[in-house]
Amino acid sequence: MKIKVLDTTLRDGEQTPGISLTASEKLRIATKLDEIGVNIIEAGSAITSHGERKSIKEITSEGLNAEIASFARAVKIDVDAALECDVDSVHLVVPTSNLHIEHKLKKSKEEVLSQAIDASEYALDHGLIVELSAEDATRSEMKFLKEIFNQGVDVGVQRICACDTVGMLTPEKSFEFYKELSTINAPLSVHCHNDFGLAVANTLGAIRAGATEFHCTVNGIGERAGNASLEEIIVSLKTLYGKGQNYTIEDNDSSIYKTDINIQELYSTSKLVSRLTGVYLQPNKAIVGENAFAHESGIHADGVIKNAATYEPIVPELVGHKRKFIMGKHIGTKGLKNNLDELGIKASDEQFMEIFDKVKALGDMGKCVTDVDLQAIAYNVLELKREQKVKLEEVTIVSGNKVIPTASIKLKIDDKDILEAGVGIGPVDAAIVAVKKGISEFADVELEEYHVDAITGGTDALIDVIVKLRLGDKIISARSTQPDIINASVEAYLSGVNRLLEDVE
Amino acid sequence: MKIKVLDTTLRDGEQTPGISLTASEKLRIATKLDEIGVNIIEAGSAITSHGERKSIKEITSEGLNAEIASFARAVKIDVDAALECDVDSVHLVVPTSNLHIEHKLKKSKEEVLSQAIDASEYALDHGLIVELSAEDATRSEMKFLKEIFNQGVDVGVQRICACDTVGMLTPEKSFEFYKELSTINAPLSVHCHNDFGLAVANTLGAIRAGATEFHCTVNGIGERAGNASLEEIIVSLKTLYGKGQNYTIEDNDSSIYKTDINIQELYSTSKLVSRLTGVYLQPNKAIVGENAFAHESGIHADGVIKNAATYEPIVPELVGHKRKFIMGKHIGTKGLKNNLDELGIKASDEQFMEIFDKVKALGDMGKCVTDVDLQAIAYNVLELKREQKVKLEEVTIVSGNKVIPTASIKLKIDDKDILEAGVGIGPVDAAIVAVKKGISEFADVELEEYHVDAITGGTDALIDVIVKLRLGDKIISARSTQPDIINASVEAYLSGVNRLLEDVE
Repeated sequence: MKIKVLDTTLRDGEQTPGISLTASEKLRIATKLDEIGVNIIEAGSAITSHGERKSIKEITSEGLNAEIASFARAVKIDVDAALECDVDSVHLVVPTSNLHIEHKLKKSKEEVLSQAIDASEYALDHGLIVELSAEDATRSEMKFLKEIFNQGVDVGVQRICACDTVGMLTPEKSFEFYKELSTINAPLSVHCHNDFGLAVANTLGAIRAGATEFHCTVNGIGERAGNASLEEIIVSLKTLYGKGQNYTIEDNDSSIYKTDINIQELYSTSKLVSRLTGVYLQPNKAIVGENAFAHESGIHADGVIKNAATYEPIVPELVGHKRKFIMGKHIGTKGLKNNLDELGIKASDEQFMEIFDKVKALGDMGKCVTDVDLQAIAYNVLELKREQKVKLEEVTIVSGNKVIPTASIKLKIDDKDILEAGVGIGPVDAAIVAVKKGISEFADVELEEYHVDAITGGTDALIDVIVKLRLGDKIISARSTQPDIINASVEAYLSGVNRLLEDVE
Repeated sequence: MKIKVLDTTLRDGEQTPGISLTASEKLRIATKLDEIGVNIIEAGSAITSHGERKSIKEITSEGLNAEIASFARAVKIDVDAALECDVDSVHLVVPTSNLHIEHKLKKSKEEVLSQAIDASEYALDHGLIVELSAEDATRSEMKFLKEIFNQGVDVGVQRICACDTVGMLTPEKSFEFYKELSTINAPLSVHCHNDFGLAVANTLGAIRAGATEFHCTVNGIGERAGNASLEEIIVSLKTLYGKGQNYTIEDNDSSIYKTDINIQELYSTSKLVSRLTGVYLQPNKAIVGENAFAHESGIHADGVIKNAATYEPIVPELVGHKRKFIMGKHIGTKGLKNNLDELGIKASDEQFMEIFDKVKALGDMGKCVTDVDLQAIAYNVLELKREQKVKLEEVTIVSGNKVIPTASIKLKIDDKDILEAGVGIGPVDAAIVAVKKGISEFADVELEEYHVDAITGGTDALIDVIVKLRLGDKIISARSTQPDIINASVEAYLSGVNRLLEDVE
């Protein structure tokens, strides 16, 4: 069965408190959604503002394959605003619960019904496709719901949609509810919110019951607890209702529910939306979180090394993601061996156990163990001389609102003193510019990624800086944790540089 | 029906890659879990390390009400390690799928079965309660699963548990699966992982089918995509399977499924775990995320002001959370009016619409609108003279690895020049210390919270600093976004100070 995807990242998603996208950011996201095979893009709500209309117009004039929709209330001015933007369709929303009708609209049911039908006809007369949508449908009387939908279908609306506006469904109620609505003579769409963490399960329930279109957002963003997540629904449909874990990239869609989505682009889509909206994901977000395919504990890492299927529901590459092994106190001997092999470190059985114990002890102290930490421990146990090629002697920065951020740096590289200075857009940037200049004679190390965890607490909180550095085709991560963001940044950078330079020799 | 809660935040949760808790942090979390009514606390895996055993021992010697369990593989050394920690019980885990048995353990089914029973008997003989748990149960043959469980029950294990180790269940499969297992003569427990975003829905499915205990973690943390989330399950059981939205704090549990959890402590528990583990939640995390009860769009804010139930699934206070209205481009007239009233700003209809348009325009530019922004816009439109009491003339900082972070600051307060200097643990701290000294004569403003969003990208990325300041019993948030963390911090601080001082006069 073919299932259509209506993505509402640019409307429900943008309603996430605190998010505002510029027109060019919205266009970028729309283009990506179109590329990955989204059927209908809800580009915004045209009535919202002048800027919103400008942004929707830019999307409609891009000539994308997807149908472009605007959200609209069932009133003429909203439909007019949508028409002004040259959209293909409106997601025409009318509240149907007594709660919304009496307390929000302060109208009678008859008024709401005739308003819905009038607006539908007006939109249809002006050449728009209409998806007639019932807001708070799941707390509405089924009789009234069916009446609105049936009258809508009679005047020609092309699709109907029932919204679980405050996320009150359960999977089994969702199945019953959409089953009942699927008897209406129009394609049925499901729109779920995640207030109880059930949006994806409820959407799947509706699809099983006969809904042939679902609404979703990338990363599940949206007002309050957000909407149903595109990536979780797509991967569930492909695997849990398809070939399960045996689904491969080469497969033509084996699921009984087929969509047009290119599953391999789900991770990159998630990253794009997360970067442009500024809503970063928690590491354990399903499918696309940074830890979705990361393994720390000994039992798990051991299993994955022997056969990835033991602790991985799907191959991470299927969604464009990657597997990671993380070291910490839960590491087992198999995982550690794997990590040491990668660093090219050979240890006797006795030395190996000593390294193992020290990694665990570091973990017990509440530290996450990085590549560079493990190397330091191993070199220590093996009594290898570990020559830091680049040593930091001194760093000084001056900055302020009337001072050009300036850093001076003194490095010792192979017993040669190097003095350098740099300016930057802020003091951290200035310091890294100075360090980069200082080592440029020896190596052209690129800073690929600079990451500081969210800092919450006081201005004296510990700051955890992680950098990803590249030398040629080698990439390494390093970290430093200190209360001073500048010292932490310089230290992390140099500890990565030293590791990269060791490998070269 | 009484449902028991086994919380595994300290074991599954701590296996989140990158997390390591110290013994005192684990004790703090265990105490909180006990306080809120968790029945069984899985305090760790005793075999992991010396530090882990020390930490479990500290928890068992605390005299908590909850049963304290250790994870253990079905081997004697793991049970011995658990015994060493004086736990009440073991969560005794044995892989049951062919995949795990053949590829990970490289054993026969018969060996695994006898190992499970031997370890159970050994643990029981030593006075432990045994919860016999099948790993990867959902990919195992039902016949073998029942055989292990039945033999376990025969030798006296008190509870059985089936784990959906890689989260492959769907809600309807979960119901069928646990229904089948509920025929075994022992209390049945469900343990779900969130790889497809379905852990909570699958747990609810199992409870409907007859499971009388569930495993969960606070905030759903855990390896990969994490485990089923305590708060989502509890609130779902209380409301979706109880009185729905009409559930009140005063209610004795109206759900057909009763737990001992104090629902009002869910938010504070979430915050504690998030702070100690360093795993911050995405804002749209259900129930406990910062946006779970935040409203931006005009339609929603309007509805909530008239009747909160229109756009809120439960009263936020029910879980110890709070409602928030956020300003942005989706704001409606009702929401804006509410915000202006709170600021004590009275505008004519014409002025009001001008303010409204300007707030929307700021939103269109991609900015989130703070209290201080709104005030600036409103004062501008109303042509009110807006006197910044404290003006920043100059800030300069010097810092480095051999320099005491030092800041000098020049402020103009009521046309009086104020010069101050301060030292701190880093340059940001030094700057804030200097500013605080500078204004101390006029007001004793406390920095309640300092928050910098995660910075990802280059060292020249824009940095968003939000501060929460207190003067007496007034609290205000302010923000500044700049590439320089020091200037951003000082600006945000001063813009909040000015707003607080205005209110005082």
